Amino acid sequence: MQRCASSGETTHLIADIEGQDPLNLDSLLSEEEIAIRYGLCENLMPRVLDGWRTEQFNHDILPEMGKLGLLGPTIKGYGCAGVNNVAYGLIAREIERVDSGYRSTASVQSSLVMHPINEFGSEAQKEKYLPRLAKGEIIGCFGLTEPNHGSDPAGMETTAEETEGGFVLNGAKTWISNAPVADIFVVWARCKWDNKVRGFILEKGMKGLEAPAIKNKVALRASVTGSIFMDTVKLTHDAVLPNGSGLGAAFSCLNSARYGISWGTMGALEDCIARTRDYGLERKQFNRPLASFQLVQKKLVDAQTEVALGLQASLQVGRLKDQGKLAPEMVSMVKRNNCGKALQHARIVLDILGGNASADEYHVGRHVANLQVVNTYEGKHLLNAISDIHTLILGKAITGIQAFAN
Amino acid sequence: MQRCASSGETTHLIADIEGQDPLNLDSLLSEEEIAIRYGLCENLMPRVLDGWRTEQFNHDILPEMGKLGLLGPTIKGYGCAGVNNVAYGLIAREIERVDSGYRSTASVQSSLVMHPINEFGSEAQKEKYLPRLAKGEIIGCFGLTEPNHGSDPAGMETTAEETEGGFVLNGAKTWISNAPVADIFVVWARCKWDNKVRGFILEKGMKGLEAPAIKNKVALRASVTGSIFMDTVKLTHDAVLPNGSGLGAAFSCLNSARYGISWGTMGALEDCIARTRDYGLERKQFNRPLASFQLVQKKLVDAQTEVALGLQASLQVGRLKDQGKLAPEMVSMVKRNNCGKALQHARIVLDILGGNASADEYHVGRHVANLQVVNTYEGKHLLNAISDIHTLILGKAITGIQAFAN
Amino acid sequence: MQRCASSGETTHLIADIEGQDPLNLDSLLSEEEIAIRYGLCENLMPRVLDGWRTEQFNHDILPEMGKLGLLGPTIKGYGCAGVNNVAYGLIAREIERVDSGYRSTASVQSSLVMHPINEFGSEAQKEKYLPRLAKGEIIGCFGLTEPNHGSDPAGMETTAEETEGGFVLNGAKTWISNAPVADIFVVWARCKWDNKVRGFILEKGMKGLEAPAIKNKVALRASVTGSIFMDTVKLTHDAVLPNGSGLGAAFSCLNSARYGISWGTMGALEDCIARTRDYGLERKQFNRPLASFQLVQKKLVDAQTEVALGLQASLQVGRLKDQGKLAPEMVSMVKRNNCGKALQHARIVLDILGGNASADEYHVGRHVANLQVVNTYEGKHLLNAISDIHTLILGKAITGIQAFAN
Amino acid sequence: MQRCASSGETTHLIADIEGQDPLNLDSLLSEEEIAIRYGLCENLMPRVLDGWRTEQFNHDILPEMGKLGLLGPTIKGYGCAGVNNVAYGLIAREIERVDSGYRSTASVQSSLVMHPINEFGSEAQKEKYLPRLAKGEIIGCFGLTEPNHGSDPAGMETTAEETEGGFVLNGAKTWISNAPVADIFVVWARCKWDNKVRGFILEKGMKGLEAPAIKNKVALRASVTGSIFMDTVKLTHDAVLPNGSGLGAAFSCLNSARYGISWGTMGALEDCIARTRDYGLERKQFNRPLASFQLVQKKLVDAQTEVALGLQASLQVGRLKDQGKLAPEMVSMVKRNNCGKALQHARIVLDILGGNASADEYHVGRHVANLQVVNTYEGKHLLNAISDIHTLILGKAITGIQAFAN
Repeated sequence: MQRCASSGETTHLIADIEGQDPLNLDSLLSEEEIAIRYGLCENLMPRVLDGWRTEQFNHDILPEMGKLGLLGPTIKGYGCAGVNNVAYGLIAREIERVDSGYRSTASVQSSLVMHPINEFGSEAQKEKYLPRLAKGEIIGCFGLTEPNHGSDPAGMETTAEETEGGFVLNGAKTWISNAPVADIFVVWARCKWDNKVRGFILEKGMKGLEAPAIKNKVALRASVTGSIFMDTVKLTHDAVLPNGSGLGAAFSCLNSARYGISWGTMGALEDCIARTRDYGLERKQFNRPLASFQLVQKKLVDAQTEVALGLQASLQVGRLKDQGKLAPEMVSMVKRNNCGKALQHARIVLDILGGNASADEYHVGRHVANLQVVNTYEGKHLLNAISDIHTLILGKAITGIQAFAN
Repeated sequence: MQRCASSGETTHLIADIEGQDPLNLDSLLSEEEIAIRYGLCENLMPRVLDGWRTEQFNHDILPEMGKLGLLGPTIKGYGCAGVNNVAYGLIAREIERVDSGYRSTASVQSSLVMHPINEFGSEAQKEKYLPRLAKGEIIGCFGLTEPNHGSDPAGMETTAEETEGGFVLNGAKTWISNAPVADIFVVWARCKWDNKVRGFILEKGMKGLEAPAIKNKVALRASVTGSIFMDTVKLTHDAVLPNGSGLGAAFSCLNSARYGISWGTMGALEDCIARTRDYGLERKQFNRPLASFQLVQKKLVDAQTEVALGLQASLQVGRLKDQGKLAPEMVSMVKRNNCGKALQHARIVLDILGGNASADEYHVGRHVANLQVVNTYEGKHLLNAISDIHTLILGKAITGIQAFAN
Repeated sequence: MQRCASSGETTHLIADIEGQDPLNLDSLLSEEEIAIRYGLCENLMPRVLDGWRTEQFNHDILPEMGKLGLLGPTIKGYGCAGVNNVAYGLIAREIERVDSGYRSTASVQSSLVMHPINEFGSEAQKEKYLPRLAKGEIIGCFGLTEPNHGSDPAGMETTAEETEGGFVLNGAKTWISNAPVADIFVVWARCKWDNKVRGFILEKGMKGLEAPAIKNKVALRASVTGSIFMDTVKLTHDAVLPNGSGLGAAFSCLNSARYGISWGTMGALEDCIARTRDYGLERKQFNRPLASFQLVQKKLVDAQTEVALGLQASLQVGRLKDQGKLAPEMVSMVKRNNCGKALQHARIVLDILGGNASADEYHVGRHVANLQVVNTYEGKHLLNAISDIHTLILGKAITGIQAFAN
Repeated sequence: MQRCASSGETTHLIADIEGQDPLNLDSLLSEEEIAIRYGLCENLMPRVLDGWRTEQFNHDILPEMGKLGLLGPTIKGYGCAGVNNVAYGLIAREIERVDSGYRSTASVQSSLVMHPINEFGSEAQKEKYLPRLAKGEIIGCFGLTEPNHGSDPAGMETTAEETEGGFVLNGAKTWISNAPVADIFVVWARCKWDNKVRGFILEKGMKGLEAPAIKNKVALRASVTGSIFMDTVKLTHDAVLPNGSGLGAAFSCLNSARYGISWGTMGALEDCIARTRDYGLERKQFNRPLASFQLVQKKLVDAQTEVALGLQASLQVGRLKDQGKLAPEMVSMVKRNNCGKALQHARIVLDILGGNASADEYHVGRHVANLQVVNTYEGKHLLNAISDIHTLILGKAITGIQAFAN
């Protein structure tokens, strides 16, 4: 089962349901966009089981992605590929076809580290960090969520104080992807002098900075997660991101990441479908393939339908983003829908594996565990324990009434 | 509540969630396509309650639709509008925003009567019938389903026998929309001379032809439904559709209708959302609008999301249809998904109305009753009592294994 | 299909799944309790279609129920049967097996009219009204819900003023079952002299009292519903229920009704299962009974399981009620669960009927329309437009936090 | 969070919803039955995280259970406790409150090893094995499922041949709980001399017998699972279970296990509810406890309701079992329902934990992973890859038509 579900050449039937493109998404993509998927999954797949079992970060992966131009890919210049947002989404889909943890690692690097540096950083910061981040030579992380204010950053307790020669940061962040292996940290802090939130770039090895790993995770084990503790960390003046203040800047990063997740989770579900479909065709009961049972076919059909619809929706959001017509609620809608549907249907097709569901080499159980977390996170930055935060964001958009605290 | 939920001018916000276009479908439509929706709903809405209550067919409606070019609209020539398939879908959406029964009446006329005459008819048949059908001067119906073989037309019992001067038809059809008011009947019969199924055009008043109404329906009461009984009905040789034999011809009509239904049901759900959203904003409990309650917002958000996704999917299928890239399974996918989701979420938002749900002037209960039938029919022509027939059509497409009789 | 699904003699198999008693509920019932079901359904069934189609109240039904001892059956004395609360539940189940509207008529008479008179009335009131109500000679209704305060009776606008010789009532009530045919009205009003809510007994024909019917309902059409308008209605001092003041008295009536509904809805679902199971066994597709299809069996099994569980739960609540160990949250739990499950699964099995779902003589569509309303009402008295009110009642019980207005 | 959710003293409120007994199950239990729960969870809980993380079997646990009389508890004599089947269910509930893997270990010992020896074994076999199994001195496992015939034991390939002095067994079994640590193996084989299936008792260390562990499971990691390979394993004549032949004997063991699982999974869900409820009360967002949000309350209420109903149903099945009135379909019904509901609602309440869901010390993610497997297994012995096998068993009971191979 160590193969890549559906990347590789497409067969371009009119209705390529077997090839998992039932509504012919490919007909809406350029050749360059389609080309993104070749080889990526095959390259990553052989290492994922080891990463999952050991919770060890694989240091080869980001440089390999860098070589393929997959990191910060929408950025123009600084060694980045400069592709459009649809291509960015397709990359996320291919990586998450292998593992949501791998996709998280890449999302953080691209959307949560390179994006804010590119958007809100000085020219010097861009030149210093972006090329090395794009190559995967250095790893970044993004520190926003705090232990007691996961979803309510208005209560942020991490502070920045101005001192002679720069700033001093104090505070703690938690559930930070990549933190234990990060070379640079984009950390958000409340500035004591004007009470505004700003981003700061910290570097590994600074005095007072610690980033211990959170171990024994039940999901996303192929990526690393940790806390960030800052005890009087001293920064020079050029460590602040000068061109964005307020939580809006931090949120724009999350929104970029969420857009990618909407594509990524569809990739994970596609892998689940492909594997359980193959299993159902190979495995016989009562002298017939499992895939011939009505109850099994229904599971596959429901899942495949949601993939087809979710991809069309993400494509439309990506095109609008490229055209400058994006509204943030659109991202909430496709993130919420695609994560939720991916989780729901990955769980359902998992049952096709019967007892083998519990063997990690069948992969679907791993996707299911990952997707549960992906369904709540990036939401968690706004409302930690309610995965339904996007429900309420959309609820406000539809009704005009904010019910977050209702 | 006698207003049209969301037709009328669009506001073209970037994310027009309030105006029920959260993923900016309009940005993908031409001005001509967008123009279709103006006025249609407003025109039909005032008559629907009376139609529902009395089960009386309103004879003004088809001629009015004819005047607007909405009947057989994709046909070139013969007085038809000659618009594309996306426009056809948008028409279905606007009509079903008012009532699924009205949309059924129009679907039958366009997809099940005009379409087969145009596709499989002789030039004389086209000239004789299409212009009058396009104007709504005459009404057509489509006789395929039989009392004992609803979903298994291979068992068709209606027969055509060749006689001197023409044919004799014998048999019965049931659950035929428009039949009691039809002027012409496209009836499918098994031809005794070669055992093939062919379509025949019958006319009202022929000896031996009866089409009594089925009364006391719990759904689709604004449209009429009946049986067709044929006892030695004599036809001349020019009554047969010469250019299509086999069930495939009949099925191509159904597929065209189903494509329209995939759009139509989204319109019905949009009306349900708009009405319950308005109700939730106006109605207060505990001194707050109902729409401010989290549990209410979730209902609206889930429904609105499915509309946004379903419309994107139907649009893609329509564009592929116009490009000649359609596969029938695509239609199964969007018909099944959109009907199912429309029914599911119309039922959920109905609860927002509380006790008023049972008052027909709130309209949503009517949509809910209609959508239950729409979710099973057109499927019924293949497998009467299993609404899941499209599950198995798609199951076959995905697995390669036919499980209809499993 | 004019038969009674599963009443009649039971076969007492150990696991009588066919007879719809898969967890052997009967083994927990006394012979007297079991005897309740004989004949009741057969007696009522032949009239229900006419009632549904015409929205006409059948004046024979309450007297017939009275003859069988089914009205106010738990009351001791006053011509009432004096059975236990389990028997009361079993009666509701048998009546609602036929129609939720019939059960509503009976519930109002028993739980909302006879119960408050027995609990909160004077001896004179009991003697005057209970025997005639028990016989079904007179019909009662219960006026609590108001047009603008359906679920928030704290905002009640109907007032009682003390005058010489008695009281004057002013106000309006809406969605009142039985009101248009009622001989007596138990109306709840806010007393101006102490701001407390009390119940008053009004009689038909009083000056200033009107009770027009609400017509064109999409559900519960076999029962009548109306408004109550009170314009300076004069009452004598003996019209007030002397022994209960405050909303708690009104709510105790609703709680009694809800307990019955928890049984009744299971009866409705049992009828849906029995009818669709029979249909599935008789109807063939592809030369096999529909009931042999996996997708059909799953629908029946899920529904039958919920009936089995729901009945066990209601039985336990009934036994605890008889033992004086009832907590109101228990009633919320079984009312909410059983109504919700009955609605959900009645809708699912309805699909087995295919196109016949829309014919009222197949009955299941009628049950489905009824159950949607039953799922929201009695909740509506607390929170009109949120059927989830019981969610929040139970939420408070589980978490200790009231979130009604959250 | 290292505490036991709800065992310990009960508070015996009338409706003890807080104490997770909303329908007062305790009122239906004897004091002895209630007493079972004291201390068990507290004793096991501290070790479960280590077992989960390391996949190491803890050899202390079965002896401890033995000391408490929890192994083979319904057996009379042979050092067993001789309690009733309700008590057996309550034991399973308490153990699975801690971990489904622990409960699996115990279920195998009690229902799949001790039960068949007691039912089908010779007096000598009983005396030899039961007392030591009851004390947990030796560990048993149950070999039925085969690699290629998981759910279709009619295709069993393991064979027993008669030789001089006894039997020779050849074949392989897979997904066998306890196998790698088992001292004795109850293995089912097809006997070549009469083609009947019989059980044989094998002992660790026999030549040709191997039982390697299956590692890297994604669920049930606190228990061990393995394969059994038998290559010409020689047995004496007294190794066969003399009093039961045919698959029916093996199935009776599974049925006993499934009955326990129906209780056990309710315990797991109860733990999930208690933990997430506490979390929701402690954790604040927007200055309010999470548990005050409507969307959070709904999750808890739905879950708690299913526990209340599922326990009532299992109790009824247990009482009927004790009275000799059990039908196997009853067990299918409560096993299927309770496993399915436990899984569904454990997944839903897991979301309340937000990002912390992925930390194993919050425990709920572990339950969720476990319950997915529990929902399919014991079913897997009949139809490996379709968790819906019980759907079809019940479908047959309801419709009279077997659709296993449909």
